Formats: sequence, structure tokens, C-alpha cells
Amino acid sequence: MTEFKAIGLITKPSDMLLGDTVRALLDYLRARGHEVLVDQSAGPLLRHTGLSSVRREEIARRCDLAIVVGGDGTLLHAARSLIEYDVPLLGINRGRLGFLADISPDDMISRLEQIFSGRYREERRHLLHARVMRAGRLAAQSDAFNEVVAHVKGSVRMIELEIYIDGRFVNTLRADGLIVSTPTGSTAYALSGGGPILYPSLEAIVLVPICPHTLTNRPIVVDAESRIEVVLCRENATPAGASFDGQGDVDLMPNDKICIERKAPYLRLIQPQDHNYFQILRAKLRWG
Amino acid sequence: MTEFKAIGLITKPSDMLLGDTVRALLDYLRARGHEVLVDQSAGPLLRHTGLSSVRREEIARRCDLAIVVGGDGTLLHAARSLIEYDVPLLGINRGRLGFLADISPDDMISRLEQIFSGRYREERRHLLHARVMRAGRLAAQSDAFNEVVAHVKGSVRMIELEIYIDGRFVNTLRADGLIVSTPTGSTAYALSGGGPILYPSLEAIVLVPICPHTLTNRPIVVDAESRIEVVLCRENATPAGASFDGQGDVDLMPNDKICIERKAPYLRLIQPQDHNYFQILRAKLRWG
Amino acid sequence: MTEFKAIGLITKPSDMLLGDTVRALLDYLRARGHEVLVDQSAGPLLRHTGLSSVRREEIARRCDLAIVVGGDGTLLHAARSLIEYDVPLLGINRGRLGFLADISPDDMISRLEQIFSGRYREERRHLLHARVMRAGRLAAQSDAFNEVVAHVKGSVRMIELEIYIDGRFVNTLRADGLIVSTPTGSTAYALSGGGPILYPSLEAIVLVPICPHTLTNRPIVVDAESRIEVVLCRENATPAGASFDGQGDVDLMPNDKICIERKAPYLRLIQPQDHNYFQILRAKLRWG
Amino acid sequence: MTEFKAIGLITKPSDMLLGDTVRALLDYLRARGHEVLVDQSAGPLLRHTGLSSVRREEIARRCDLAIVVGGDGTLLHAARSLIEYDVPLLGINRGRLGFLADISPDDMISRLEQIFSGRYREERRHLLHARVMRAGRLAAQSDAFNEVVAHVKGSVRMIELEIYIDGRFVNTLRADGLIVSTPTGSTAYALSGGGPILYPSLEAIVLVPICPHTLTNRPIVVDAESRIEVVLCRENATPAGASFDGQGDVDLMPNDKICIERKAPYLRLIQPQDHNYFQILRAKLRWG
Repeated sequence: MTEFKAIGLITKPSDMLLGDTVRALLDYLRARGHEVLVDQSAGPLLRHTGLSSVRREEIARRCDLAIVVGGDGTLLHAARSLIEYDVPLLGINRGRLGFLADISPDDMISRLEQIFSGRYREERRHLLHARVMRAGRLAAQSDAFNEVVAHVKGSVRMIELEIYIDGRFVNTLRADGLIVSTPTGSTAYALSGGGPILYPSLEAIVLVPICPHTLTNRPIVVDAESRIEVVLCRENATPAGASFDGQGDVDLMPNDKICIERKAPYLRLIQPQDHNYFQILRAKLRWG
Repeated sequence: MTEFKAIGLITKPSDMLLGDTVRALLDYLRARGHEVLVDQSAGPLLRHTGLSSVRREEIARRCDLAIVVGGDGTLLHAARSLIEYDVPLLGINRGRLGFLADISPDDMISRLEQIFSGRYREERRHLLHARVMRAGRLAAQSDAFNEVVAHVKGSVRMIELEIYIDGRFVNTLRADGLIVSTPTGSTAYALSGGGPILYPSLEAIVLVPICPHTLTNRPIVVDAESRIEVVLCRENATPAGASFDGQGDVDLMPNDKICIERKAPYLRLIQPQDHNYFQILRAKLRWG
Repeated sequence: MTEFKAIGLITKPSDMLLGDTVRALLDYLRARGHEVLVDQSAGPLLRHTGLSSVRREEIARRCDLAIVVGGDGTLLHAARSLIEYDVPLLGINRGRLGFLADISPDDMISRLEQIFSGRYREERRHLLHARVMRAGRLAAQSDAFNEVVAHVKGSVRMIELEIYIDGRFVNTLRADGLIVSTPTGSTAYALSGGGPILYPSLEAIVLVPICPHTLTNRPIVVDAESRIEVVLCRENATPAGASFDGQGDVDLMPNDKICIERKAPYLRLIQPQDHNYFQILRAKLRWG
Repeated sequence: MTEFKAIGLITKPSDMLLGDTVRALLDYLRARGHEVLVDQSAGPLLRHTGLSSVRREEIARRCDLAIVVGGDGTLLHAARSLIEYDVPLLGINRGRLGFLADISPDDMISRLEQIFSGRYREERRHLLHARVMRAGRLAAQSDAFNEVVAHVKGSVRMIELEIYIDGRFVNTLRADGLIVSTPTGSTAYALSGGGPILYPSLEAIVLVPICPHTLTNRPIVVDAESRIEVVLCRENATPAGASFDGQGDVDLMPNDKICIERKAPYLRLIQPQDHNYFQILRAKLRWG
């Protein structure tokens, strides 16, 4: 059993409604004898406690666990800053179930009790690293926990993308864009685009065309070790861009190549032992 | 039988490959005794003939028929300029079958012979008129033969749209956008978005959500007389735009309302009597 | 204002849970001075009241309105027996919202009060009539309010169907089957098959292929006046059948032709004036 | 380099059109000095050669390679009889490209020359083994290279299935059925049902609901090591069945459980080194 001695506390910045949850967490963790490092994001919530907050880097370097209070977006945002430091994360939501932040404030104490007593498991989720190459040089790069998207910008015209997997030509896609998604992202934008659900721990990547001109251009699931290249066609005259988890939008020029590969470290999620992904799926997708 | 005495000749501007087709048409029509008005778009192709070309307005006012040589896009572009003048159109393609320009250069003479001998029918296609209302004032307006689209601009975030039909609230759509399409447009962008095929003469409009967040937001087909309103939600912070047949992009502000209604005049297409829409569908969608 | 003097009362047979609703309805209607004809289906529920029930034909001939208590299936079943007699229907559900039976027992009295005071509208829904022709003879026929389905029987092999619309060949479909649906049926089986939602009063029919081999065989919406023919191909060796609203399954032989046309009388539904179809859609499809 | 000394020759039985291909193969292989065992399926084609054919078991036990002439179905049929013996297969088609039988008769000699000179690779494809359990006993079992399907029989009513993955409840599915598919099967029936394409060597299984009542019941991709259980619900009154690669249909009774797991041996396919799956995909799905 890992001992989570030093615990970082991260929240969605400027969401004052989280104050009660964060303070309750803090009291509970300190009462249990954990060292608690409060992230600057949570600083404003704890102003009256006299507690000082620390920079993200300190949490990254010193914590055995980071507890993130907020939605899935907040957890992914925190994960981006911690991924190089191998800190496991645990998400507590704001009362609305998330795919990642699936512990509700109402039963967080009993769930944490369960986890600290050793009845937990660690789920590993792979992520992507994307590099935008322009004329042989690195023009931009980013991690993506959910998806890398090459997409049309600002109009309703199609763009043309050449897709390669492990150096082999797949097809020339004429579409609004292409979503290259992890299993984590498969229930986000990729699902809206018509992609399948990938079980979270599956070592796979799914390519989902967005509104393809050719109706038989269906989603393709490939191994997570695949090297994916997406080239904006030379003749493409429509403004296009690339984004990573819906952020960091980069303008694409004709002949730009997005190289997408699995990133070495995994996102580590700490979950109660009886965690059931399908329960979340049933609730979020309103099955039955 | 209508006599097509004066005939306008319109082409895709600057496509010099159309020269042979246009000259053959011209010779044929003049030999049959038709008065031929050559549009300025076809002027460069006929430079050596000493023939003078006329402005589009003259074709609109004087012709009994406009023959358009080019793709579906060229025909729709011509239709936009002629719609108010009630001139029927006939499309001749560039060797690649179109949904609208479905007569090939190879058999255009025999098809025209058939039509001029009275063995033709006129197909009516309804179109849309869209007005963008901002704070009670008209901010922009346009016709659309294919579709009106409200869409996200320049990022991969969703926009929020409120949809009303005949004044009744339908739903708040969170999506990349919404396609409001005529039957003519149902085999264009709307099909890529997951919409059904509407038979061309059907008096209906289809609303197709683009990558909706809620998976049950399926395409809805309503009567062509329906009054459709699409409001960009007040809280929407993501840049959004509206476009009409993929053109005339207008930036949308929160609270902007796009009012979409059937436009009174119909697009009139002249077709050989044995024209078969399903034959085109089979060829274009590669059925069987 | 139509006066609903004589009212028929029909329920789902053998559903004893409906007793309270039916008795409350009966008391209310008689107190208002309506003549109430209790259908045999409701007889068992009223055993202790000493009231006698009548045969369906008597309701069909004598009533100005038929109130059906049960789900959408019960209402459609009643409609089948009344359609030739032009009796309007009104559906009261069992506490679970239906697309057709959309008045809940909880507010049925106030809704009926509204309707009897003249604040109602009548919605017309078109239906289909299907004839199965074998070697030039009528082998079977049926009405369908939702859909006519030609489908594979008892295995997972595809069947081959030739589709004709108004005598013109559409395509040879290799699939699990074909759904030919009214707007009423568009939110039933056709929706599961990937079809669009048709607004209930739209004069259209949608053809939805079930798991087609050719991915571009998309749903097609045609005018309600279209004459649709579906022929089981001569070479088809897989057992196939036809069904009508999920009932009356008929075995199909190679060369059998199903002829589907709009049936002349409409289904007449009485609704409170503020009835909103989209409200039902939002609730049933869990939008937003 | 493996030496393919003894080679089995298998064809689609009773397809006399394959005679030329099989005889050319035989001549070529014997000229190269291979020992050729002709399967009984190819016996009739070689009647005039005086060559005797052997039983499948002998091919299974003695051959280093089995060459199958026919379509994908023929290859899968052969694979079913050889899978326990670990014989690699090579498919030659009848002039129409297959996903598995992707070598055409026209260039089979040059492709085989390439393979025998060592420029080949072996692709492993995982398959499934399904057991139908009834009241704790084995009622039926089968391998499946493409898919296991639980499906409604002989009507258009839905069946109800409970799905479990690794012992955890996923959902109660109301649908026409459920397809549990390998990557090999992902371009067959599962694709018609709306499933994604899985790269052939991906160690994954996809569950594709057929016409699900709940629209959010989307395809789910899980690890190939997952233990999948599909239970026909106790209350299910609609006749249901299970099939394996479209064969061996088994009637299902309420409470029957289909247990599906990866089968230990892999299907081994011998391919020229420059084999490109995406080339096949582009041709079969008519991309571009």
C-alpha cells in the first residue's frame, strides 16, 4: 500500500462555490495527519484560514497525491501541469458527476477513508503528444489527454487532410476536420463526432472524421503505439487549425504535418476499489 | 409547350477547359435558330468568335432559359442571380456528374434535342431566405438554395443555439453548429452531418445538428412552410457565424437571431422527361 | 366547436392498474352529462359498477370521441379498429409520457375540461396501407400507423430488396431489412434504425434501411403521396417477412412485392390547444 | 525464414470457375518443388489430373501453409477447421478483392514468389470463443473469427439483453440484438450496425448494439482479454438466437448466458511484406 503522506489540493480557480468542499477536505486531511499543500488555485477560497498556498511546481515535486476539486476540465488542466512528475490524481466533482471527477462532495469523506485504508486501485490512462511540423521544423507542440483536432477555421468549407499511420498512407480526408482521441477523450468531442466509446484503460487511439464528405470514412481504432501523421494538403485554401484538448489553437498552413504519438508517462487516477466505469457511463449517457 | 426562344449561356468563370463545350453549344443553339445571349462569365472562352457578351441582368430579363455549364456550384451561383426573374435553368456538367448539373457534355446535344422537342419536365425546388436580426434590426440577409448554417468559428468549442419552430421552443442545442437545409442541400453538407436524403421536390426542410453534445439531438424534418428561428444564446462566449450555401459568412453576436423561411419563388430546373433522380443518387453515392 | 356528446372509453385489456383512472374518467364524463360507452376492453375494470360494456363496432359507429387509456401501443391498437369510422382519439397514459398518449392521469380532468370548453385542436396523422402481392394476387394486406417493415427472419444474413418509388427503380438494398415509416413511426423503430424525426403532421414517408451493407444507403424522405414498392429479390434465399406496426407478420417469398401507399383516412388526434410536440420530444429523448 | 515445404490447397467447394486458378497454382507449386496436398474441396476441379485429394485433417497435421482460393467466407471456413493446428493461411481471391483473400489470381505467382523468397510477414488475428450456458450447463459453443451475434428471431420486436464485462454490469440493452466483433469482423456486419473499423492486429473487441431503443447505446471497444457475458433477460418473450460468423444459429431461452472470450490460438495470415491494410480499406469502402 502506497502511503499518501503529502497531498496537494487543487481547485478550479475563481469558483467560490467550492469553498465549503475545499475547507471540509482540508480539515479532514489535516485531522488524519496528512501534510496538505494548498495550490494557488485554492488560495482565495482559504483566505480566512491564514493558510498559505504554494506554486504548482511545489505540489508536483513534493506530493504523493493531488486531489482536484472541480469538473473534468479542471482535473485535465491540473493533469497537464503534473504529468511530468508522475503524481497520481483524484477528482472530486461539484455535485455533478464527471467521467474523471466522479466522487461527489457528499460522500467524499467515506470514499477517501476507503482509499486511505488501502482499498483503492490506480487506473492508468494514456495520453498523446502532438508536434506541428512546418517545413521540417517544430512549429508547435502540446500534450493532449482527450484529443488532438485538425479542423476548419471560421467557415463551413471542408479542409483536405492526408492521414498516415506508421508511415503508411490511409486516405485523403475531405471533412470539417479530424479528431484523434484517447480512450479518455472518446466520451468527449469524439463521441459527438460519431466515434465509439473506448474502455478507459484500452491501449488504443481512435480517429474520428468530422462530417466527412465521403460517407464511408468511418472511425478507425488503432493501437496506442501507432504513429499518426495528419498533413494539411498542399492545395488546401481554407483556413485550418489544430487544437489540443480544445485549447492552444494553432493555425495550420498547407503542408503542415501534425505528428501524434502516445506520450510516455500515463495519467494516474486513484479510484475507490469498487469504482465502476460503466456506472458512470450509464449515468452520463442516461442509459435505461 | 414552352418555346425556349432566347437562351442565356453561363459558365464557371475562368475555366478555360469549358471552351469546347461552350462553343459546341453555341453553334448548336444558333443553328437551331435560338437567340443566344452569352454571359460575361463565358466571354473569355469566346474571344476568338468575335461574339460580344452581355451582363447577367440582361440574361435575367430577356431569356426563356439559362443553360449553365459547370458543376453544381456554378449552377447554384447562377441561380442566385436569376431567382428573382423566374428564368428556368438547365445544367451541363464538365464530365463529372452533378446532382444539379446532370447532363454530360457527351450527350448534351441529344438531350437538348429531346428537351426542345417538348419531351421535358420542369422540376421546382424550394429555397430559403434567411435574415440575421440583431437587437431588432436586420443585420444581414441572404437566400440559400442548399443550406443555412450557424456554426462555431475558429475553435473546437461548442456553441449554444436556441431553436424555435413556428414560435415554439424546440431545444437548446450545444453543438458545433446547426444546418438548416432544403431538399437540394440534403445531399450536400447536411448529408455529411448525418441528415437524411430529402426527395428534391419534397416541400420540407431538415434541421441537422453538427456534432451535438446530446447524442439524441437527431435531424428533424419539418414542413417547408415552417418558420425557423435560431438564436445564439446570450451566454455564448465562443465566436460563431452564419453562412448561406457556404458563402457570405456573417459573424454572430450573442442574442442574434437567424430567421429562416421558404423564399417565394422556386428554383426551376428543366430536365429531360426520362430524368431519374435515383439514377443520380446511385451514381453519386456509389450504391450497388 | 364540435360537441363530444357520446364518448367511448377504451383501455389496455387486462391491465388492472388502470382501474382508478378509468373509474375517475367515467365519473367525470357522466357528471358532465356525456353519454359514455365503455369498451369491452374496460369491462373487467368496471365489474363492480354494474355497468355493461359494448363491442368496439358500437363505439366506432356511435361515438364522437374515443378516449384511450394506456400507452402508445394501446392507442394505436384502438386506432386500427376505428380508422374506417373517422372517430377522433384522445390518449391518456399510465403515468409514463407517450408520444401519442401524452396526457397524464394526474391532470387529465383539467386537460379534458380545457378540451370540452373548445380549447383544443385536431391533429391529423397520415397512415399507410400495405399490400403483399404474390404472383399478381393479394397475399396479405394491413394498415400501419407507425411503419411497414420488410426484414430478415431468424438469422443474421442479409436479405436483398429492390425498391421502387412511383414506378422508378431506387436501388437494390442488401440489409437486415427496410423500414417504411410515417411521421408517427419516425420516433419509434425508424429512429433506432438511424432515421430522422419527421414532424407529426408532415406529409412525408421515410425509408430507413436496417444495417445496410452499403454504408451510403441512407434514409430517404419522400412525399406521402409516393407509391412505394419493395420486392424481395428473386435470388433471395434467406427467410424474410413483412410486419405492420410490429404485428401481423407475413412470410415473404422471392418475388413478393409489398406495395405501400398512404391510406385515405387520417388518424385524428384531439389535443389541448397548448399541446407542444417538442415538449414531448425533449422529455422522451432527454434533451437538455 | 520459415520454409513452406508442404502446402495445402483448399478452395470453395463446387465453384468450378476456380479450376484454372487452382491448376495454375498446383503447377507452379510443384515446379518449385513443394509437396502439395490437395484438399477434398478442390478434388472435383482436379479430376482430370489424376491427382488424389486428402482429408482436411491431413492438411491440418502435415502442412506448413494452407493456400485458400475463394472469397473471405471460404478463407474463414478453412480457418475454422485449421485453427487448432496452427497452420498459417494465405488467401487468393476470385478476382474480387477481399479483406482477407486480398491476392488476385492475376498476380498470385509474383506474390507467391515474393513470399517464398522470404519477403513476407505474418499477421496474427485474434478470434473469439463463445459458450451458450443454460441453467449452468453448456448448451452450445463455437469459435468466431468475425462476430458473435445475439439477435431477435423472426419478428421486429426488440429483445432485452443484460451485458457484463469482466463480471461488471454494463447495461440492459433493448435492441434488435448485439454484435460482439473481432477486428476482423469490424469491417463486416459490425460496420453495417454502425461500429468503428478496428485495425486488424488490435487486441480489442467491439460491442455494437443493433438498432438500440436508447440512442446513446453506442459501440464500446474493450480489451481483447475482456470476458463478455450477454444474458437474455428473464422476462424476454421474443424469440431470440445466437450466431457465430453468421452460422450455427442457436435458439436462446430466457436466462441463457453467452460467455465470450478470446480464443487462445490466433489466426495466422501470411502476407507479402508490402501488404497495406489501408489500400484494401480504400478499395473496399471506395474512399476517394
